[in-house]
Amino acid sequence: MTLDFYTNPMSRGQIARWALEETGAPYNEHIISYGPEMKGEAYLAINPMGKVPALKHNGAVVTEAAAICAYLASAFPQSGLAPSAEESADYHRWMFFAAGPMESAISFHSAGFKPTKEQTATFGFGSYEMILDVVKEKLSRDSYACGERFAMADVYLGSQIGFGTQFGTLPKEDVFTAYIERLANRDAFKKAKARDAALIAEMQASKSD
Amino acid sequence: MTLDFYTNPMSRGQIARWALEETGAPYNEHIISYGPEMKGEAYLAINPMGKVPALKHNGAVVTEAAAICAYLASAFPQSGLAPSAEESADYHRWMFFAAGPMESAISFHSAGFKPTKEQTATFGFGSYEMILDVVKEKLSRDSYACGERFAMADVYLGSQIGFGTQFGTLPKEDVFTAYIERLANRDAFKKAKARDAALIAEMQASKSD
Repeated sequence: MTLDFYTNPMSRGQIARWALEETGAPYNEHIISYGPEMKGEAYLAINPMGKVPALKHNGAVVTEAAAICAYLASAFPQSGLAPSAEESADYHRWMFFAAGPMESAISFHSAGFKPTKEQTATFGFGSYEMILDVVKEKLSRDSYACGERFAMADVYLGSQIGFGTQFGTLPKEDVFTAYIERLANRDAFKKAKARDAALIAEMQASKSD
Repeated sequence: MTLDFYTNPMSRGQIARWALEETGAPYNEHIISYGPEMKGEAYLAINPMGKVPALKHNGAVVTEAAAICAYLASAFPQSGLAPSAEESADYHRWMFFAAGPMESAISFHSAGFKPTKEQTATFGFGSYEMILDVVKEKLSRDSYACGERFAMADVYLGSQIGFGTQFGTLPKEDVFTAYIERLANRDAFKKAKARDAALIAEMQASKSD
């Protein structure tokens, strides 16, 4: 049972690392640099998209940060991060909401693209404003994606909201800040972020050598 | 155990109906018309996005076509549509690939938006061309998302490719056509498509009255 984690600290790999730390399982870390290494033959054999993160577990590869979260929750049931039967509807709904329409809406919005009325009807994500309203309403009602208990869906939804508010692609609404504070209190979150911060500091130090 | 299915035959609801038919479970169908009904108070209480499909199962609501697929596979384990431990990596990878970057890339591409080189690096989906290459390579190697066996991931990935090639947002590559032919042979696929086609015919007949 080996877990190989391919990441770069300045990437969505931060989401997957937090997910890994939540499982408590030990893993081998492989830092892939942007540029020739990430687009090179060796790494393309792992992820033909030439993107991090990727995870190899017992020989099988998972790519896409959201997929890695959901995969780990189901591969490590003892971690209690997968949903109960009662939580399953919310879990799937918010995992895919954050990975699909929310991700699309944020990408479109930050690219300065405003969908026409017709496109709003056709696109799965509707509009950026609609997405914001729906997420704000959800988090005003519930502390976590599945209700009052933390589950793996929060790693992904929380990361979308955390990065969004940090990089200015989502507004700093109180309901978002409160959610992120709840998540940032978790040991696995702190451990994951500390490791990525240390790696970023190392990279910057070696650049200025 | 009641399943309420909210859909419109001319929507991504077709994906969810196929998923429902694959489980073999009986369900109540609610046709929601575009316009005031879909954006009205009653339906917004079910899906605040004002979009179909939505599924209510034992009181819990699931929205997003991909989430409905994954939810049903896990809620009806006897249907054999959820992955084995060995298939789980591929299952999650391709479910989220189709729902996330592939969906974004197709939306951007059909909106005539071409990401800059910098955006290609930042956006989760990279570029439309990269997505196409990765899916073509996958389906040249494997008959289905998880290998040689049909699983729920194929309902979603297959629908993306089916609608894409039908509406011209994806090219009609041989490898795509062959995959869709394999899927279109399934009884659940035929049953679901026949029901949606009959509903569309009814809607068109009542319009021309």
